[in-house]
Amino acid sequence: MRILGIDPGYAIVGYGVVDYDNNRFRPVEYGTVTTPAGMPFPARLALIDRGVTEILEKYRPQALSMEKLFFNTNTTTAIDVAQARGVILLAAQRAGIEIREYTPLQVKQSVTGYGRAEKMQVMEMTRQLLGLKSIPKPDDTADALALAICHAHASGSLYGKLQLELGGKRR
Amino acid sequence: MRILGIDPGYAIVGYGVVDYDNNRFRPVEYGTVTTPAGMPFPARLALIDRGVTEILEKYRPQALSMEKLFFNTNTTTAIDVAQARGVILLAAQRAGIEIREYTPLQVKQSVTGYGRAEKMQVMEMTRQLLGLKSIPKPDDTADALALAICHAHASGSLYGKLQLELGGKRR
Repeated sequence: MRILGIDPGYAIVGYGVVDYDNNRFRPVEYGTVTTPAGMPFPARLALIDRGVTEILEKYRPQALSMEKLFFNTNTTTAIDVAQARGVILLAAQRAGIEIREYTPLQVKQSVTGYGRAEKMQVMEMTRQLLGLKSIPKPDDTADALALAICHAHASGSLYGKLQLELGGKRR
Repeated sequence: MRILGIDPGYAIVGYGVVDYDNNRFRPVEYGTVTTPAGMPFPARLALIDRGVTEILEKYRPQALSMEKLFFNTNTTTAIDVAQARGVILLAAQRAGIEIREYTPLQVKQSVTGYGRAEKMQVMEMTRQLLGLKSIPKPDDTADALALAICHAHASGSLYGKLQLELGGKRR
């Protein structure tokens, strides 16, 4: 099963493509789609659309795993992230793939087995599960890979699904 | 000048196409793009994208006028409206047209000459300016037409621009 994890944004979209078969992970590709700060916002959306569509066409994942959006205090940023997120959802919908959303708690639980894990623990466990030499940079990329792992666990086994639903510890 | 006004949403997208020449308005077409409540959200985004793209291709407006988004208390709704709004911005960007955003205050001021006008006054003045027999339904459509009028005033004359910038009364 090939999964695309995406950490949405309008300046930096982190992505990670991961294969998950026989309970083993293989990183396929990961990185960012970035847009310049000075560019008008609709043009930035078009760049994001193009970048994500290229990833979908090149790697043909079966599913998109994306973080659920919550509001924080910086509302202007939140609106723009949500607008970019809509464009990403549309690209995945056009590609006809499964689309799933996970909360930060679900990602932490799924990757580390502990819902209150520190960000650094999640990144380190992501590195280990994918057999990478170092934690991918920037954080948006590492977050995207963690989202892909979360969806693999959630859909790959009944055990993984129970973990997410019951909030129990995996190790 | 042909302007497309859009009141963004994910259940109902109001739209209004208006011609503005020699200080006169002519309504070209108006209505809504709607999506069913039970449909998965990414599929609703795809419907909105298709509907708006069809309007852009059929009426070929030179500009999109859309309301600026602000957050209210209903945050889940706000996220979903923002996601739909991103899809609409992308469609307009792909069509290569001018994209402008206006605040509710700017729309009220531009349409009625009074920034604290009641919603009903804005709709009635919209009806008069467009020479319509009755106020278009639903409100989303009337709001979209008001947005088109606002952009016409803002870009059609120095006087209109001054009105928007200075916040003065037009009558």
